[in-house]
Amino acid sequence: VQLCGIAGTCPPPMPEPATVAVFAGDHGVHAQGVTPWPQEVTAQMVANLLRGGAAVNALGRQVGARVVVVDVGVAADLDGAPGLFERKVRRGTRDMTVAPAMTRSEAVAALEVGIEVARELYADGSRCLLTGDMGIANTTPSAALIAAFTGRPAVQVTGRGTGVDDAMLRHKVDVVTRALTRAESRVGSWADHAAARDALSTLAELGGLEHAALAGFVLGAAALRVPVVLDGVIAGSAALVAHALSPPSVGYCIAGHRSAEPGHAVALAALGLRPLVDLDLRLGEGSGAALALPLVQSSARILREMATFDSAGVTDKVVTQEEG
Amino acid sequence: VQLCGIAGTCPPPMPEPATVAVFAGDHGVHAQGVTPWPQEVTAQMVANLLRGGAAVNALGRQVGARVVVVDVGVAADLDGAPGLFERKVRRGTRDMTVAPAMTRSEAVAALEVGIEVARELYADGSRCLLTGDMGIANTTPSAALIAAFTGRPAVQVTGRGTGVDDAMLRHKVDVVTRALTRAESRVGSWADHAAARDALSTLAELGGLEHAALAGFVLGAAALRVPVVLDGVIAGSAALVAHALSPPSVGYCIAGHRSAEPGHAVALAALGLRPLVDLDLRLGEGSGAALALPLVQSSARILREMATFDSAGVTDKVVTQEEG
Repeated sequence: VQLCGIAGTCPPPMPEPATVAVFAGDHGVHAQGVTPWPQEVTAQMVANLLRGGAAVNALGRQVGARVVVVDVGVAADLDGAPGLFERKVRRGTRDMTVAPAMTRSEAVAALEVGIEVARELYADGSRCLLTGDMGIANTTPSAALIAAFTGRPAVQVTGRGTGVDDAMLRHKVDVVTRALTRAESRVGSWADHAAARDALSTLAELGGLEHAALAGFVLGAAALRVPVVLDGVIAGSAALVAHALSPPSVGYCIAGHRSAEPGHAVALAALGLRPLVDLDLRLGEGSGAALALPLVQSSARILREMATFDSAGVTDKVVTQEEG
Repeated sequence: VQLCGIAGTCPPPMPEPATVAVFAGDHGVHAQGVTPWPQEVTAQMVANLLRGGAAVNALGRQVGARVVVVDVGVAADLDGAPGLFERKVRRGTRDMTVAPAMTRSEAVAALEVGIEVARELYADGSRCLLTGDMGIANTTPSAALIAAFTGRPAVQVTGRGTGVDDAMLRHKVDVVTRALTRAESRVGSWADHAAARDALSTLAELGGLEHAALAGFVLGAAALRVPVVLDGVIAGSAALVAHALSPPSVGYCIAGHRSAEPGHAVALAALGLRPLVDLDLRLGEGSGAALALPLVQSSARILREMATFDSAGVTDKVVTQEEG
């Protein structure tokens, strides 16, 4: 039903070919020690993605989705490669505990990267867009955005990301809380969801460049009337931004999966989205969206290809008194 | 990990090509008015399946699985067709409320049909087997089998099947209860799971021919060391039979999905299986197994194709005091 609504026709067109866009960026808040991974892993994993060695590459091959990488903010110079969109807005964000992560114009530029990538993939034939992300420390700004847009305290929406132990998790919650407090002093309290009134400022204060681009990607997909399959907590936090900027955009979003990050369930509930896959995964990269793609395509195919009882010559059921 | 264990090698072989075997049968208990659908719909839907018009055909095309139909007990003469295995043991079961649904030798013959179909599909190249079923009224014997093998009362494991209203559901629970009481007088009480001591008698008393064949299909897949992806409540009840006959066989089973039929959750819990897809579906035919196939294949592909951090040249994480 949702696919029919998105396309404005029933049965809906097949949501294919599909492309996963992995938006990559680095994060100034990495300096606060919110992850055991060095920042250079972002660029190393981008290289791995471009070589086809990451999880989402294997999944893309399985489900028939192309994988592209968008450098919207990696803090390193990347070599050009097939499948790499070089759209760096800046080399990583600022540390959100001490300053706005982005200026408003940087946030707008990153949003526009996402919109443009959606348009270019559509122009190249894609009819289903999947979100992916790569950025060491990016669950930290995700938690901050989810807290800001839902009014929940940091402790409820901050998770272990990749390999964070108990002590580091406590520290990470503190880092998110400090960022929220700093930003609140500039854009006003979120306690009453006031942030929705200036989503762009909130995004600039707390978001990552890939979060901004992902929000734009959702808006771009919605404008193009193609479904966008969301991956995990990074996409969920970005979808909250897109929803705040344009509430109808969420109607074009399909929640690919629910990740084990606690903030993701909070974001999905706020968006009113039910995840298709729910297997305690937390890998990122777009892996959860890729796993859900066959389910999305299957639903369209059922509507397009399944015989009706009439067309198949199946005898109708006996109407009972209760129904009759 | 399960796929590696099944094959005895890591990474596991790709579970492909995959085949859905739709076991079709009719049920004497249909005479008790447990469904609004006439019995001839079974044969009509088999024809629809063989023409490629059913839901599982559309899904099979989406996920790259072949669909075959096994007539193990349809109460009608079927025309031969490509993709039809003609293995009728008898034209439907007896009414389990008044007599054993099958004799022991009929149950054994139907079990052997399932084993043979698994062997033939394997010989033809299939390396992943999916269960499907078609049989008007077949959720009724499923409920009876689940009650018998888990010791739960009929009211907890009997559901609406396809289009059963409140009054008919109350009647259906009563029918299942009467069948259990009748059978109990012959094979002894199930209250203490005694049925597990004579699974074959229990199957003969209460099962359908497709349930027996599906149990054999599971045993056959296990003997061949190929994964078998279970569909919904009919497969779940058959897997309980297979488990009772040979407990290790459940290690070869993957729960494709959890259906909305209440007995299915009970069966999966008893089997210790976690469903891959959980979307309140209740369509049968093998549809839930087909939807799960890409997830199963994706897991094998990840193990086979994903780079390690070593091979991708990714810097190791910093070991913290807590871990060090």
